[in-house]
Amino acid sequence: MVLKVCMIGSGNFASALVINVGDNVKANPETFDPIVNMWVFEEDINGRKLTEIINEEHENVKYLPGIKLPSNVKAVPDVLEAAEGADIYIFCLPHQFVSKSCSVLKSQVKAGAIGISLIKGFQIKDGELILMSEEISNMLNGMPVSVLMGANLATEIAEGKFCESTIGCKSYENGKTFRSLFQTNIFRTQIVEGDRITVEMCGGLKNIIAVGAGFSDGMKMGNNTKAAIIRMGIMEMIEFVKLYEPNTQISTYLESCGVADIMTTAYGGRNRALSEEFAKQYPNNSFEDLEKEMLNGQKLQGPLTAKEVANVIKTKKLEKKFPLFVTINAICEKEIPPQDLLESVQFTTYKFVK
Amino acid sequence: MVLKVCMIGSGNFASALVINVGDNVKANPETFDPIVNMWVFEEDINGRKLTEIINEEHENVKYLPGIKLPSNVKAVPDVLEAAEGADIYIFCLPHQFVSKSCSVLKSQVKAGAIGISLIKGFQIKDGELILMSEEISNMLNGMPVSVLMGANLATEIAEGKFCESTIGCKSYENGKTFRSLFQTNIFRTQIVEGDRITVEMCGGLKNIIAVGAGFSDGMKMGNNTKAAIIRMGIMEMIEFVKLYEPNTQISTYLESCGVADIMTTAYGGRNRALSEEFAKQYPNNSFEDLEKEMLNGQKLQGPLTAKEVANVIKTKKLEKKFPLFVTINAICEKEIPPQDLLESVQFTTYKFVK
Repeated sequence: MVLKVCMIGSGNFASALVINVGDNVKANPETFDPIVNMWVFEEDINGRKLTEIINEEHENVKYLPGIKLPSNVKAVPDVLEAAEGADIYIFCLPHQFVSKSCSVLKSQVKAGAIGISLIKGFQIKDGELILMSEEISNMLNGMPVSVLMGANLATEIAEGKFCESTIGCKSYENGKTFRSLFQTNIFRTQIVEGDRITVEMCGGLKNIIAVGAGFSDGMKMGNNTKAAIIRMGIMEMIEFVKLYEPNTQISTYLESCGVADIMTTAYGGRNRALSEEFAKQYPNNSFEDLEKEMLNGQKLQGPLTAKEVANVIKTKKLEKKFPLFVTINAICEKEIPPQDLLESVQFTTYKFVK
Repeated sequence: MVLKVCMIGSGNFASALVINVGDNVKANPETFDPIVNMWVFEEDINGRKLTEIINEEHENVKYLPGIKLPSNVKAVPDVLEAAEGADIYIFCLPHQFVSKSCSVLKSQVKAGAIGISLIKGFQIKDGELILMSEEISNMLNGMPVSVLMGANLATEIAEGKFCESTIGCKSYENGKTFRSLFQTNIFRTQIVEGDRITVEMCGGLKNIIAVGAGFSDGMKMGNNTKAAIIRMGIMEMIEFVKLYEPNTQISTYLESCGVADIMTTAYGGRNRALSEEFAKQYPNNSFEDLEKEMLNGQKLQGPLTAKEVANVIKTKKLEKKFPLFVTINAICEKEIPPQDLLESVQFTTYKFVK
């Protein structure tokens, strides 16, 4: 029996990674069904359906223009049809669509099917944090859901530039299956067994660090200070992960999902860039306005995650343990000026305790 | 009995940090002698002696112009006189002067005196690596020598910008003494007990990583790849440290001496900048020429350290464990083109094993 794979999502990152998946299933016909269905939220592109364009021209002209997709990737506008008979689900869609898609998929999930989430960030329900992998698993009858995170800017992947990625999973067997789907000569994956929660949480939390790094850039605080703020952010990241995974492994932070992703986000990337502008123009601008000006109205992940995380910290009354995260949120909310960033952490001693 | 402190060195970094030391001894007269002698290699500055200028105008016009030194810092041109009666030695001078200074100081070192090295990098003798702290200790009758490392660009420190730093020491007591000398509201030190070797080696090895990062910038390999190369550099750094400190603590790499210093060096700094140029202009330029063009002939640390480290690796026949370090050196030596950088590590799996 070969395994049928479906991609739930068709944005920038989904389209970049479905290339790897399409090529890999084709190359391994003894393991995988040669067709990869990709659920595409139907859109009208100059009078033509997006699915039709993808299936005829093998290009996602809306979300990854200029890059050819493998011809064995089939765009399907109906999510149930896309996932029909699937043994392996790859989730790569915005948060807000997860719940709706899963409630539709629930009825037809095969026993024994496995999933992987490529979605960065988390949700908050009733003051508690819910990881996307767990949300999906809960909605899909307890399906085991792994995660893939790392320094993986979609455009660079699609352009064929080398990168590393981290697969976090409970079972190494599942990790190996996902590696055989995603790994190529220029997309190298490392499997982290038993520390999935850390891998997944890094993907969300790093955006808060990037906001702090952007503030320090906006205030021209220099290289030493910026590095110190990022480092303190890593220390708070570890402490925050510990709330959900007391056995978090410090070595996981040295994987691509950790330091590598933090560096790309805190030295490049739009969370950093908009936060720099925010601090420069303070108080004459807000993230909402900057999102309109610089992102065509797309929401920035960092301030959102900072808010969610600050809420959890306040609910748990742990403000003293997370001065940087709390302060970054307060600055985003304009409760305090960016100039107060340093003061919040200046005399804090961060120490990693096993 | 109060403790007498001397600074052996008067360059950019020594001059920036002697400000902290001068202010701290003045503020703690019950612990420290109020005068800090600073050994200054005598130079003629437009017909005036540098020591005279420092002592009269409290400014190191040659190595830290525009910044006032505390008036209790006394420039002394003779190293023996500068260190007379010293209980605490701070070493902050170029490698090549260490041996000579120590051979002079040897005769007069007090029993019970302690030292700290701020010198980044190491020496190679007979194919073996010698840490500066150990070289100093060996030459000075076994004096215990701690180290201070971190994301500490001297000019930013002198400008009053916030930074963190790491003190590596065998004894926590010594660590605390050094913290009381260096720490200020904007220069925060963290003491790492028992992992001094790791702290010290990070300070040298990070420059090799910066060279790799610069090559990737020069070849426009993108953010994902750059982060991957830096991350793989960190993994090789840990492996290399293990050769000298099998009990290296992974948490030490999350201190300022680790990730923070690596980030500033690999995203800013001259090792990165010159290596970018080297890769761009390859094969039409050499590091020697670039040093002349861009550094007024000053030697760049990265290629030098890469060479020393590659020699150790080759002597120990460990090339397979350190493909990135060996390749970076081979590129610096023009044995292979920068384009071969990726190939060397593309299929390497780095895994942290305790």
